[in-house]
Amino acid sequence: MLRTLFESEHDAFRESVRAFLLKEAVPHTADWEAAGLVDRSFWSAAAAQGLVGFAAPEQFGGSGLRDFRFNAVINEEVVRTGAVGDGFSLTNDIVLPYYLDIATPQQQERWLPGITAGDTVIAIAMSEPGTGSDLRAIATTATREPGGWRLNGSKTFITSGIQADLVIVAARIAESDGGGYGLFVVAAGQEGFQKGRKLDKIGRRAQDTAELFFADVFVPDADVLGEPGSGLHYMMRNLAQERLSMAVVAVASAEHAVATAVEYAGERHAFGKPIGSFQANRFRLAELSTKTQIARVYVDRCIEATNAGELTAAEAAGAKFWTTELEFEALDTCLQIHGGYGYMEEFEVARRWRDARVQRIYGGTNEIMREIVGRSLGL
Amino acid sequence: MLRTLFESEHDAFRESVRAFLLKEAVPHTADWEAAGLVDRSFWSAAAAQGLVGFAAPEQFGGSGLRDFRFNAVINEEVVRTGAVGDGFSLTNDIVLPYYLDIATPQQQERWLPGITAGDTVIAIAMSEPGTGSDLRAIATTATREPGGWRLNGSKTFITSGIQADLVIVAARIAESDGGGYGLFVVAAGQEGFQKGRKLDKIGRRAQDTAELFFADVFVPDADVLGEPGSGLHYMMRNLAQERLSMAVVAVASAEHAVATAVEYAGERHAFGKPIGSFQANRFRLAELSTKTQIARVYVDRCIEATNAGELTAAEAAGAKFWTTELEFEALDTCLQIHGGYGYMEEFEVARRWRDARVQRIYGGTNEIMREIVGRSLGL
Amino acid sequence: MLRTLFESEHDAFRESVRAFLLKEAVPHTADWEAAGLVDRSFWSAAAAQGLVGFAAPEQFGGSGLRDFRFNAVINEEVVRTGAVGDGFSLTNDIVLPYYLDIATPQQQERWLPGITAGDTVIAIAMSEPGTGSDLRAIATTATREPGGWRLNGSKTFITSGIQADLVIVAARIAESDGGGYGLFVVAAGQEGFQKGRKLDKIGRRAQDTAELFFADVFVPDADVLGEPGSGLHYMMRNLAQERLSMAVVAVASAEHAVATAVEYAGERHAFGKPIGSFQANRFRLAELSTKTQIARVYVDRCIEATNAGELTAAEAAGAKFWTTELEFEALDTCLQIHGGYGYMEEFEVARRWRDARVQRIYGGTNEIMREIVGRSLGL
Amino acid sequence: MLRTLFESEHDAFRESVRAFLLKEAVPHTADWEAAGLVDRSFWSAAAAQGLVGFAAPEQFGGSGLRDFRFNAVINEEVVRTGAVGDGFSLTNDIVLPYYLDIATPQQQERWLPGITAGDTVIAIAMSEPGTGSDLRAIATTATREPGGWRLNGSKTFITSGIQADLVIVAARIAESDGGGYGLFVVAAGQEGFQKGRKLDKIGRRAQDTAELFFADVFVPDADVLGEPGSGLHYMMRNLAQERLSMAVVAVASAEHAVATAVEYAGERHAFGKPIGSFQANRFRLAELSTKTQIARVYVDRCIEATNAGELTAAEAAGAKFWTTELEFEALDTCLQIHGGYGYMEEFEVARRWRDARVQRIYGGTNEIMREIVGRSLGL
Repeated sequence: MLRTLFESEHDAFRESVRAFLLKEAVPHTADWEAAGLVDRSFWSAAAAQGLVGFAAPEQFGGSGLRDFRFNAVINEEVVRTGAVGDGFSLTNDIVLPYYLDIATPQQQERWLPGITAGDTVIAIAMSEPGTGSDLRAIATTATREPGGWRLNGSKTFITSGIQADLVIVAARIAESDGGGYGLFVVAAGQEGFQKGRKLDKIGRRAQDTAELFFADVFVPDADVLGEPGSGLHYMMRNLAQERLSMAVVAVASAEHAVATAVEYAGERHAFGKPIGSFQANRFRLAELSTKTQIARVYVDRCIEATNAGELTAAEAAGAKFWTTELEFEALDTCLQIHGGYGYMEEFEVARRWRDARVQRIYGGTNEIMREIVGRSLGL
Repeated sequence: MLRTLFESEHDAFRESVRAFLLKEAVPHTADWEAAGLVDRSFWSAAAAQGLVGFAAPEQFGGSGLRDFRFNAVINEEVVRTGAVGDGFSLTNDIVLPYYLDIATPQQQERWLPGITAGDTVIAIAMSEPGTGSDLRAIATTATREPGGWRLNGSKTFITSGIQADLVIVAARIAESDGGGYGLFVVAAGQEGFQKGRKLDKIGRRAQDTAELFFADVFVPDADVLGEPGSGLHYMMRNLAQERLSMAVVAVASAEHAVATAVEYAGERHAFGKPIGSFQANRFRLAELSTKTQIARVYVDRCIEATNAGELTAAEAAGAKFWTTELEFEALDTCLQIHGGYGYMEEFEVARRWRDARVQRIYGGTNEIMREIVGRSLGL
Repeated sequence: MLRTLFESEHDAFRESVRAFLLKEAVPHTADWEAAGLVDRSFWSAAAAQGLVGFAAPEQFGGSGLRDFRFNAVINEEVVRTGAVGDGFSLTNDIVLPYYLDIATPQQQERWLPGITAGDTVIAIAMSEPGTGSDLRAIATTATREPGGWRLNGSKTFITSGIQADLVIVAARIAESDGGGYGLFVVAAGQEGFQKGRKLDKIGRRAQDTAELFFADVFVPDADVLGEPGSGLHYMMRNLAQERLSMAVVAVASAEHAVATAVEYAGERHAFGKPIGSFQANRFRLAELSTKTQIARVYVDRCIEATNAGELTAAEAAGAKFWTTELEFEALDTCLQIHGGYGYMEEFEVARRWRDARVQRIYGGTNEIMREIVGRSLGL
Repeated sequence: MLRTLFESEHDAFRESVRAFLLKEAVPHTADWEAAGLVDRSFWSAAAAQGLVGFAAPEQFGGSGLRDFRFNAVINEEVVRTGAVGDGFSLTNDIVLPYYLDIATPQQQERWLPGITAGDTVIAIAMSEPGTGSDLRAIATTATREPGGWRLNGSKTFITSGIQADLVIVAARIAESDGGGYGLFVVAAGQEGFQKGRKLDKIGRRAQDTAELFFADVFVPDADVLGEPGSGLHYMMRNLAQERLSMAVVAVASAEHAVATAVEYAGERHAFGKPIGSFQANRFRLAELSTKTQIARVYVDRCIEATNAGELTAAEAAGAKFWTTELEFEALDTCLQIHGGYGYMEEFEVARRWRDARVQRIYGGTNEIMREIVGRSLGL
């Protein structure tokens, strides 16, 4: 089905993104996987190319492009080229909006130039050992002090936690200080802020994921994002775009898996003919191909809706869980089609299969997504 | 997700269709189900309302509206109101295109006025006891005679077969007469043309489905549609729209099932609370609601594509199998949510569940659909 | 997999049951389906054959055979021969145990001879319009009166309700009378006991299912089963065997469906070869065949366990939901394999498909079954 | 459901196996995973304990126990303790039978003592880069020479390939030499026999899996197993036990996953209560628990059947595909229940999930298993 989402400027952008990734990222896949993180120099290069924080205003180094189609193009090309590390989705889709929407002009002036230059790596710390997808269970505390707040607690599963220069930390505000949750910007190296282990994950190995610890970290008022007490509201509002970002990745990933499987099934022979000519394989790929196309049309529609400011939390949640289930199904089938080779790390499908599994978990587990949709039905 | 498919004229059309069905069809559901067919008077009324053959040129009683969105509106409203009998999809979506696209001006002049007036009920006879979804296995023969053709054979599963005044009969042309397949228009009452039993089906009971027998039926050249020998090509070409029509019905039906189930789950109590508040039910309905919304967006996109002449056979096949599987899943879940009541005919979900089952079979079984998609992948 | 469950006496019993059903039941299928119930004369003949209430002591007309393997044999042969009406499972597996286990010797002397003679049709009335699978929500009340109890309320979905001569009625005892639930035997014709409509169901049409109404029905103490107040306990205890009975039917039904589908797939041709030779069909039947065999071994093991008094509520619940889901899947696939013919009532698979659907609902919905198993896990 | 398979000697054996593994294997898990293979000293210890080749006759160092229940006990305890490396299944269940059933007394005398002593590690080489599950596509050739055969070709995915001292090599015999396939025993170090890379796999990392190359390797007649030309027959015959072995592992693995998930779901809290108390989780675990119990009963029955010499190829194939699909489903659910922690390698479920994936592939892919079952149905 012909995509009708993009205009010529997006197509041109896609070409440049693709060329950039093929040159600057893809050759380093094995190194970055082994190192467990991506070279900072890559990020600077990406920023120089205009791929980092382009939604920021021009005076702060961005291009003022708040058009999620550009974000989608980058996500898609990362998947298609097989680039790993994937800081784009986190930076552009998930964290940057906080700086654009609730930071003061002074804060933007301080922080955005570094972000868009690729000098400042950003992250957001919501999850804690005891929370998971339940934001209301955040136990990190923020207590009022003269001129600022004092943070105590720990976070886990924080993407880019090791490399991050600025971390937005979600913390519970003591009832006596007004209650609710706040978003506090903490810089690497601040007193009391300690980075823990780089977590050893099943996949996404080039992406650093870490534990972070906060012991009496002082955050001056100037580093508080938005209204203290409104943090939950801010996070909820941004989660729809975060989930759409995952859905974009999921569909691109499913498309890639189907294409890879179809190609392999056409070439690999067994019992004297291409394995794709066996009807059971053909049907599975037909099923997946159809579902992927359907998902593609839906996610493109969601991108339109998000640009129009109309995407609801339930629509984003539905897109997230359905496409990420599909993504894993597609990769699991692709692996199976490869037979024994699919289980070998030298075949890219092995990494992609491991990488895909987390999509059903992070950004709110798919169970939470169903809960959100179910509640939107009034149940 | 906001639908963006329709314009104000479709909305107005929808209102009128809905009002018409609620007044002229819905009150007769039980009678028509018991009788096994719909009153001819209803059809005349529908035609008077402009709902029959509106794609035909104005000089032949139509409105010249070859815009599948109008067809979709009727299909959707039939489903939503619960009207039974469903001659619209067959007439407008499936059979009429043959009269519009390959009939000669003379044929159109002879036949279209009766069709658009609702006086002439039309049908198409492809399936045979020995064929199923394999059109190439058609065994009904057409042999050349001076001035026409002689048909012999039998057909089965012919929708509107009992009521039909004009039947397009697909027949195999003897190799000695040029080979291939032809489409022959046979009128009720013609010598040698006999209608068999009205078949007793699991569902769709108000829709007559019949066996037809052809014993030396003579079809003059003037009653042959298009090129003798090109019948397979004509049928293939029209099948995409037929399948899209089924997908439109399927999505509307799934939407109705989800809405019914959500409503019932909100009202019915067990163990002291609404059954929809049990998470397992809430999750199932969340899942179905999401899939149905995704299907809706896809089918709307297919309607746009068909209006643009771009819908491929594989896309239509994919839409057909995926949405009809979804439709049955939705109705099966809706029935289950109703518990014992769902198994009782007095609850509408019982009929809708029985009715839905055939969608996975006719118009080419869903297995054939997967085959079509699979081949389009080059497998 | 060779079955190891049965001994020669069961095999002989099976032969006689089979012969009886083929002679006395199968020829009447169409009539009984149309009538909505089975002739009483059939039931007398079955009793004369020793198929009714054989677990009762010999002095009351039974054979003293409390060996569930005999029950299983009957259930299996009913399914295999295609006999409809199915009073055996209700009588022997579900209701009789109440008369054997909690009735007094005097009650047994009054009631069992009629039951085993086939003169007394028995039923049990638990479900109510407002309860479904939640026995604690029973609203029919029993209030103490001198010498007995007064019943008020209504029941629905009562199998054999129309034909029943004796109905065990579950009712809530007023707190002031001791609370809990009681089981009260009410005879047809008793003052205040009225039978309602025979319910019109999707399937199981030869089996009468009815609403029952109780308006100030007086039940003398002599007609109370067991301890008033312990009814819930009695019902829970018997439900395991009821659910096993359904599982036995389900597996036999799945086996029949697979065999029917395999046979049809071997005979029916499409595209020049048997449709069973298409790999997608072959795989589906392989999958179903394997699952059915696995289910068979499990249910046979459950029968052993029930004979040993070891079958737990959770095991029975698991057997019930898993085998009845499988049964429906098998019949749905069998129907699909038949293509258009599967949707026609003249093919037996149509009736079997409609009949099977209720198994996922009655005897406690499959959702309740999962709840029971889940709780047994301590969750 | 109480298991009825074992007798007291198996229970005692289980205790000793468990104690041995907890002491000798489990503490080394991390090391062996990192090294990519298991210490040879472990294998010697296992042999000293009587766990290696116990089915061999006593005079050759075994215990003469051809009772698959002992094999099953070891497989189950490996899974339960979390021991990795898993040479038992390969040695005892898969390869040893060739030495017991088709080796000559002289061959047994030469080879069995070393095998049962744990000094000789054995392997079997069937798969090739171009074959996968299609044994008839074996391209390694054996050509007749005076006094023996000359092997040429390569193998891949060979478990224990790196460590193996003796490898049974399946090779195609030239038509001019009689045709068919032969089984040739090749010792490590033999001229022309080269071991390739240890393959880097998604899981089973402590288990060495290798490519093997044969360049003009000379195999004297004394090292040929059974009749040259009958190799396919031998392999087919042994594959049933190989697949049963996998099913035993799969069920034990599924049981472990369910137990782990239930425990975690009972302890981990979210939204103020144990996550296992959320109905959607409870239902999934109820479903899995039930399926796993059903699988357990079936596999135990298969073990009985294999001891009785009655297990058919189709039954073993069905057991293999169904239980390994279940195993993966159980582990995938267990991982999901763990949320983000499930994706972290420090949680054991991560390894088990990666390890389980290969079960659906090796030993004949699950697609081939369905093919085997399908053909047994005559389709």
